[in-house]
Amino acid sequence: MKLFLEVVPVGDAVAAIRRIAPPVVAETVALKDAYGRVLARDIIAGEDIPGFTRSVVDGYAVIAADTTGAGEAMPAMLANTGRVAMGAPEEQAIAPGECRYVPTGGILPPGADAMVMVEYTEAVGDEVLVHRPVAPGENLIARGEDFAGGDVVLEAGRRCSPRDLGVLAVLGVAEVPVAARPRVGIISTGNELVPVTATPGPAQVRDANSSLAAGFVTERGGVPVPYGIVRDERAALEEALATATAACDAVLLSGGSSKDERDICAATIGDAGEVLIHGIAIAPGKPTIIGRVGPAPVIGLPGHPASAYVVLIAIAGPLLAAMTGEREVVRSVAARLTRNIASARGREDYVRVALDGEGGAVPLFGKSGLLNTLAASSGLVRVPASREGLEVGEEVEVLLW
Amino acid sequence: MKLFLEVVPVGDAVAAIRRIAPPVVAETVALKDAYGRVLARDIIAGEDIPGFTRSVVDGYAVIAADTTGAGEAMPAMLANTGRVAMGAPEEQAIAPGECRYVPTGGILPPGADAMVMVEYTEAVGDEVLVHRPVAPGENLIARGEDFAGGDVVLEAGRRCSPRDLGVLAVLGVAEVPVAARPRVGIISTGNELVPVTATPGPAQVRDANSSLAAGFVTERGGVPVPYGIVRDERAALEEALATATAACDAVLLSGGSSKDERDICAATIGDAGEVLIHGIAIAPGKPTIIGRVGPAPVIGLPGHPASAYVVLIAIAGPLLAAMTGEREVVRSVAARLTRNIASARGREDYVRVALDGEGGAVPLFGKSGLLNTLAASSGLVRVPASREGLEVGEEVEVLLW
Repeated sequence: MKLFLEVVPVGDAVAAIRRIAPPVVAETVALKDAYGRVLARDIIAGEDIPGFTRSVVDGYAVIAADTTGAGEAMPAMLANTGRVAMGAPEEQAIAPGECRYVPTGGILPPGADAMVMVEYTEAVGDEVLVHRPVAPGENLIARGEDFAGGDVVLEAGRRCSPRDLGVLAVLGVAEVPVAARPRVGIISTGNELVPVTATPGPAQVRDANSSLAAGFVTERGGVPVPYGIVRDERAALEEALATATAACDAVLLSGGSSKDERDICAATIGDAGEVLIHGIAIAPGKPTIIGRVGPAPVIGLPGHPASAYVVLIAIAGPLLAAMTGEREVVRSVAARLTRNIASARGREDYVRVALDGEGGAVPLFGKSGLLNTLAASSGLVRVPASREGLEVGEEVEVLLW
Repeated sequence: MKLFLEVVPVGDAVAAIRRIAPPVVAETVALKDAYGRVLARDIIAGEDIPGFTRSVVDGYAVIAADTTGAGEAMPAMLANTGRVAMGAPEEQAIAPGECRYVPTGGILPPGADAMVMVEYTEAVGDEVLVHRPVAPGENLIARGEDFAGGDVVLEAGRRCSPRDLGVLAVLGVAEVPVAARPRVGIISTGNELVPVTATPGPAQVRDANSSLAAGFVTERGGVPVPYGIVRDERAALEEALATATAACDAVLLSGGSSKDERDICAATIGDAGEVLIHGIAIAPGKPTIIGRVGPAPVIGLPGHPASAYVVLIAIAGPLLAAMTGEREVVRSVAARLTRNIASARGREDYVRVALDGEGGAVPLFGKSGLLNTLAASSGLVRVPASREGLEVGEEVEVLLW
């Protein structure tokens, strides 16, 4: 029986989990369902957008040179040739000395090279007086100015925002190629655990880690598949692990927090498949297991909720990113530490912090068995393995939840 | 025919939309479906969590005073009284001079007030040698230390994160009280618009605003209800508006960008209900309409996509927050402007910016008819109505998308 784990650096653990991650599976979804999905391939403009030169104002299409020198005292006088209809082609060209009304968004007639805003004009009979000069190209969007045909507009690995949905719409991408959502099985073990619906007995607690993991998997684009609470016994655990790894693309096994429980988890994973890593140089979260059963990666999470969450962020996050192809976008803000953080060299420490709204990051030193500091925190500050701590006043990067 | 709108300050427009927002409707969802939902009431701990004093290490429960002065050379020697079983009550007390093995997460026996880590002990026959002293309370979580019964743990208006799901789980909140998702009808008008599935003709463009609005509504916790593209004609618009306002809690009418189109939208809303505001001191986005048909608020969005998006953020955001009860959490980062931004006093300007990764905010001055800068941007910088612009090097708050 080994009392101390042989730990590996966080970077090695991340590399290992990426190496065994199942490949991205592409599927298509209707544009209306693409919000929050990860693009499975680059989106390329199939044509110039817009496909014609459009006005961005209500006013008159002109030949810019006809307005040179125009002013309040000496307006340019142009022949009004009517108005273009929205959405209809406009084949009749503008000749020198002519103008034509174009509403915002309408097509410029051939020959016209600028728009004069209606506010700077005055219609007098069949003539339009223009009180300001315009330069060629003024007040219009040229054909292809938004996106040119052939441009890569959105890159694979991007998670679709509302703004991206607008881009996909103008490009005509009604069916969006996205990564299928990986199915991630979630098993909790621990003989002290009872389900959320139960009233805990004198030495029992409700299972928090299943819900933490399910929420995290959803947030990162997967589908959580709950397998409930399994007793800390080899036979029960073997059966649950076999079922989950057969049905899911990956499994998160919240493995209890005691050494006995960790050992049972590791032995069960090892017998059903292989244990690649048992112990990571991360705090909290050291007793993490990385293994594989068949093609399915299995992460053994520590039992303490805050430890489990740090490992979800640090290890399960890269796994889900690999399985969805999502480019990892770190949301972070710079802040100044309001207290010292002690650490140990050779280990990455993740400290929960709250932002105080005045540029300060307040370390929350709650025990990793507690949920209250996890819920109250804004994110994590990472203390690199090369440092022995961080000092009050030091500028740090807060990795936002 | 008025050429210029009578604009109201942004703050007045937000107050108006909040005033007419339908009230929050509460419903309950299963915990597994609560991710991303907004809590409809405060969540209060019904009991102490944990309900018993637990060990946070593998080791021996002791009376701390029995370890005073213990060291490598002079260990404390305690009688081993066995081990506690995980999840089972433990009624037999520890007497002075005794200890009992407790795995991580297990209950402390009555009488014990601290845990010694197993690493600092040595079992010898029926005795345990303790090589380090512990203080009362060391290595344990006291009953109620995470949450005390009666505490308000999560406040109404909070959007459930994965961490919150863990908290709800330990509290036993299997059915979560959340705000019902408001149904938001989305109508696009514009005779130049064609659906996403169509190939645009020579003067036509595909409808981007419906998808921008639908994505935004989803992001802010609503259910988008698409009504497609309606021709810019009173009869068609009246019918669509009547249908949408009868079936939905609110309606977003992407109202075309020309003055003619805006006037038709405003007249249609006014005849069916009332126009409260037509014109907001915001750029882009000035020609926004705020009205109401029956109990349903109607926002007339400008036709230019970037303008529409700024109005979604500035006006529809507060509407959805009011309808879901979500506390508005502004995600922002501080950055330094890499260029001057000119503005006009008396108007709030929203400028799209990209973060350059080196602390700089790069203004993207694309025309508001373009989507490319919207997709490429990281968020908005607000130029207050009281300023005439912002200067290069100035520290600004970037409101992240």
